Amino acid sequence: MRDRLPATLPEEPVDDVAEALVGLLDDVVVPASLHWQHPGFFGYFPAHASLASLLGDLASGAVGAQGMLWSTSPAGTELEQVLLDGFAEAVGLGEAFTFAGGGGGSLQDSASSAALVALLAALHRRTPEWRVSGVTGRERVYVSAETHSSLAKAVRVAGLGEEALRVVPFEPGTLSMDPTALASMLADDVEAGLVPTLVCPTVGTTGTGAVDPVREIATAARAHGAWVHVDAAWAGVAALCPELRWVVDGVELVDSFCTDAHKWMFTAFDASFLWVRDGRALPTALAITPEYLRNAATESGQVVDYRDWQVPLGRRMRALKLWSVVHGIGLAGLRATIRRHIDLAGGLAEQVRSADGFRLAVEPSLALVCLQVVGDDGRPDSEATRRVLETVNDGGRSFLTHTVVDGHYTIRVAVGALLTEQRHVDRLWDDVRAAVNLASSD
Amino acid sequence: MRDRLPATLPEEPVDDVAEALVGLLDDVVVPASLHWQHPGFFGYFPAHASLASLLGDLASGAVGAQGMLWSTSPAGTELEQVLLDGFAEAVGLGEAFTFAGGGGGSLQDSASSAALVALLAALHRRTPEWRVSGVTGRERVYVSAETHSSLAKAVRVAGLGEEALRVVPFEPGTLSMDPTALASMLADDVEAGLVPTLVCPTVGTTGTGAVDPVREIATAARAHGAWVHVDAAWAGVAALCPELRWVVDGVELVDSFCTDAHKWMFTAFDASFLWVRDGRALPTALAITPEYLRNAATESGQVVDYRDWQVPLGRRMRALKLWSVVHGIGLAGLRATIRRHIDLAGGLAEQVRSADGFRLAVEPSLALVCLQVVGDDGRPDSEATRRVLETVNDGGRSFLTHTVVDGHYTIRVAVGALLTEQRHVDRLWDDVRAAVNLASSD
Repeated sequence: MRDRLPATLPEEPVDDVAEALVGLLDDVVVPASLHWQHPGFFGYFPAHASLASLLGDLASGAVGAQGMLWSTSPAGTELEQVLLDGFAEAVGLGEAFTFAGGGGGSLQDSASSAALVALLAALHRRTPEWRVSGVTGRERVYVSAETHSSLAKAVRVAGLGEEALRVVPFEPGTLSMDPTALASMLADDVEAGLVPTLVCPTVGTTGTGAVDPVREIATAARAHGAWVHVDAAWAGVAALCPELRWVVDGVELVDSFCTDAHKWMFTAFDASFLWVRDGRALPTALAITPEYLRNAATESGQVVDYRDWQVPLGRRMRALKLWSVVHGIGLAGLRATIRRHIDLAGGLAEQVRSADGFRLAVEPSLALVCLQVVGDDGRPDSEATRRVLETVNDGGRSFLTHTVVDGHYTIRVAVGALLTEQRHVDRLWDDVRAAVNLASSD
Repeated sequence: MRDRLPATLPEEPVDDVAEALVGLLDDVVVPASLHWQHPGFFGYFPAHASLASLLGDLASGAVGAQGMLWSTSPAGTELEQVLLDGFAEAVGLGEAFTFAGGGGGSLQDSASSAALVALLAALHRRTPEWRVSGVTGRERVYVSAETHSSLAKAVRVAGLGEEALRVVPFEPGTLSMDPTALASMLADDVEAGLVPTLVCPTVGTTGTGAVDPVREIATAARAHGAWVHVDAAWAGVAALCPELRWVVDGVELVDSFCTDAHKWMFTAFDASFLWVRDGRALPTALAITPEYLRNAATESGQVVDYRDWQVPLGRRMRALKLWSVVHGIGLAGLRATIRRHIDLAGGLAEQVRSADGFRLAVEPSLALVCLQVVGDDGRPDSEATRRVLETVNDGGRSFLTHTVVDGHYTIRVAVGALLTEQRHVDRLWDDVRAAVNLASSD
């Protein structure tokens, strides 16, 4: 693609930049893109970009306010507070996570950044001298082998190093963190003079959609004063549906909860919800106020300055796209889409289960189906599974990504693109079976 | 404002979300906003939101690709590489900062994040075991008292604590970092067993637009193996103008250079340029690859995966808005706007200089003018200056922010909004003088 673009930037403007932009999209960008909005996109976790969301984002750009402080964007700040309180209620987090209840929420760029700031708040709560003296080398952070890599990255960024990362074993026969094993590790670490700082249970892991038992994990963690951060980046929004409220089970015991609006909730990247139980935790950990940012509103203590809830100083008014989404689609519409995707995934899982030559690597989780090709001996065949994925992707009608389960290469089918309908899932399943037959006839 | 919004989110969608959004803007957002795009906005540093930029951002949202890996957005990745190479040339950084030259650039969300990842790369280069063992407590980071607070924040986030932050004195009579003092501090710290890790000279400080002598600072820093990161968040884009190329003087001696597209270059927040001399520095410091992100392109070593250049995993295709800006405005147009703002600021500075009752706190820097009200004794009067700022801001026609210079409250006039013309600067000056007269007649 680089060869199709001039290396030198233009001295003079084009006559019509909108037209030129459409030309760039048609000629260069679209042919060289992975089509995340395509109904045949089943890779990673689909990430929505609805029209309502784009309109809200356009409005945010047009207002062009920089929301670092309440005083630099009162409307953006308060709209965000109202919406985050509203969504806290809508997903069943309870009043403790609202501003009215002494907690509060913010929009982060991603679940990675949410995990990082949760860790920073945890470091500060554990050892207030952290702001002055930095980390001690004794802090420990607890994850499972299926926890998202953003936690390992947060640990690295925060200066703790991999040695601070404790990988808690799974409950036998599952891919979920074992709370009993966690409790032992915590006790051993405390005994050894180490400082349990943060425990991260995941609701809906990226690999397989596994769900860590938040209630038991939080109980074990709290006994040692560790911050509990729930990473529900993909699955958390499912709690909009009352019948899926188990997604937030145990949340009354945790310190922070993250879920992405930009995956499964119609909202174009980037917009992650991060709620914390203690609304002062992030500002006390992160605030630094030079003279040029001092202002009467901040000093009154009556306002939220969202710069203190994140690493960057500046911020877009992301609240407008969230407002647009919830007013353009409605909570009922958001729930209907989540349910539709779960139904599509459930139907596919049934077909996998009953088909010869395939198995489910794990039980389906919400709208994620993990499958493997099996050999004549009935055991998963990693090479065959990999070939199927590559053949399907090369076909260009559907897109899949993979994980590894118990050492076996595994195809992930993440149902969730806005345009995906039954026929697209059927086509994928046709493509998968055709790829197996192609391989066997080689 | 919170009272004007329903606390509960809507169950059902509105009939026309675009219309509802415009209603929200008119009734709630605009009346409760600080108007960053107003021609009378002279606060902080103005932050542009041009139509070209908004169109590019809209296109990015519509493509809806998530650019964490080359393979998840080949077009977004390569467009960004081409544009960053082009801008490296356009601002005179030299080939060393291009991908062709072994370096490379990326778009960060903000200069704060750019400073953080530069620090992380520095920590890794200095002590490769950092990824495993974390920080040692012996690292030191060198700034001046006028360096942006994002450096102190980066030091805190990276786990170093305030004790790691060394504030280098100014050259006598200036607000610029003293390279001789820096050299002594570096030598003393090394002698004491400490590890100089990063030195951050600023070109165009937020307070007064002061310029640290990059060439001398870099020379001193390199002697001790410290990473040199230039924070030119506001001023760096001025180097698009050949007569202002001094802005990048000494850059051939530094490791990284940051300037914001989203302040003074027509590009809506967020988009900061970060260039590094060693294109491997950020990926080797930041990469973590779980199974579900493994792919053939990454393993070939032939592509750039921009997730490894930043803290978050996900990323928008910001390159499209940058492409739109440079094709919609042209390099010549970008230069013309920078020059126009500098001329407007120069004219205002002349008026301040020759007016009774005022003084320039420092010589104007590019398009930033810092002024103080003086008392009958000819000395700066902080209280009077503060009252003038508050009176002007209360008037609602112009918006100003402040800093403190040598202990004196100082009004900053940052000329740079896209719509600002001579008449708006004239009106501001009228308002400022009227405010002084109002105060004296009290």
